[in-house]
Amino acid sequence: MKLLEDKILREGKVLAGDILKVDGFLNHRLDTALITALGKDIAKQFANSGASLILTVESSGIAIAFAAGQAMGLPVLVAKKSKTLNISDGVYTAPVFSYTHKTENTVLVSNEYLSAADKVLIVDDFLASGNAAMGLLSLVEQAGAKAVGFVAAIEKAHQGGRALIEAKGVPVYSLACIKEMRAGEIIFD
Amino acid sequence: MKLLEDKILREGKVLAGDILKVDGFLNHRLDTALITALGKDIAKQFANSGASLILTVESSGIAIAFAAGQAMGLPVLVAKKSKTLNISDGVYTAPVFSYTHKTENTVLVSNEYLSAADKVLIVDDFLASGNAAMGLLSLVEQAGAKAVGFVAAIEKAHQGGRALIEAKGVPVYSLACIKEMRAGEIIFD
Repeated sequence: MKLLEDKILREGKVLAGDILKVDGFLNHRLDTALITALGKDIAKQFANSGASLILTVESSGIAIAFAAGQAMGLPVLVAKKSKTLNISDGVYTAPVFSYTHKTENTVLVSNEYLSAADKVLIVDDFLASGNAAMGLLSLVEQAGAKAVGFVAAIEKAHQGGRALIEAKGVPVYSLACIKEMRAGEIIFD
Repeated sequence: MKLLEDKILREGKVLAGDILKVDGFLNHRLDTALITALGKDIAKQFANSGASLILTVESSGIAIAFAAGQAMGLPVLVAKKSKTLNISDGVYTAPVFSYTHKTENTVLVSNEYLSAADKVLIVDDFLASGNAAMGLLSLVEQAGAKAVGFVAAIEKAHQGGRALIEAKGVPVYSLACIKEMRAGEIIFD
């Protein structure tokens, strides 16, 4: 999606450790017009997916998932992150390693809001190594629901997450797919 | 706002410890149509406020703040929560005690995105004792910016947060204002 690619080229910053900082429009400060447009693009892409629910994870996936939910007329389920492996009744949980923070978290959702009847479109801000995606897919599988797609606003293709998701038969869509990046240079796929 | 009050009466659950659970539409599972309507109501209320920026705090304020930002054509700045008092260059920080979790967090924003020129509308999901509000107002004050209003989707009036905010000369608006609540009964103001 050219709108997002142009924004990344203009305002994204490549930091040490293969980190792309998009704090100015996607994470910390939210460009509401841009994110609304991302939501509409996601809706167009998955118009025939039969999705019944959007699933995301707090906190930087929320705005994008919300914009997609608005455009598709669907509710959004926000997986919570917890430092502890919070195994209690009534929740599905999965471990997720955070690439940015180098910590392991647990993601969890209430089983009240995710059922075997759901067709789930997962939406997140980044797809890199696929750790968060695998955790969210595990929640969907535990509920006996079906994942109809995985969407990332930004994919870092060289980190291999896409193959893990596709191996589960789940289609992957990224709005900006980065092939290579280094300070001062970002090359899209 | 009748739409939200009706939803709270139908689906909200009053838990021990004076906690109102609205997980099914406002926090965990997001009712995108309802939250979009909340955003429009906030925009109408603050149409003449001169706001240049919406400020919220992760993660349950994000969707409501985003909907308000969309309706007002404004960006949203999402204050991050940290367990540690993260005093580093380039950020404004303030301590916040969480009523629900009984823990103290630090909220922080980058000084890159909040300046003395900003007129800030603060938007959060709840106003209770006013702890989160005071932390966010402190960030605005540190930047030398002006707070033009504080909005909560749901106010628990009996916990006194409103008076603290109004004492700073900042107008408070809540979309649903709860006067009293106990199991099975919620009374609006």
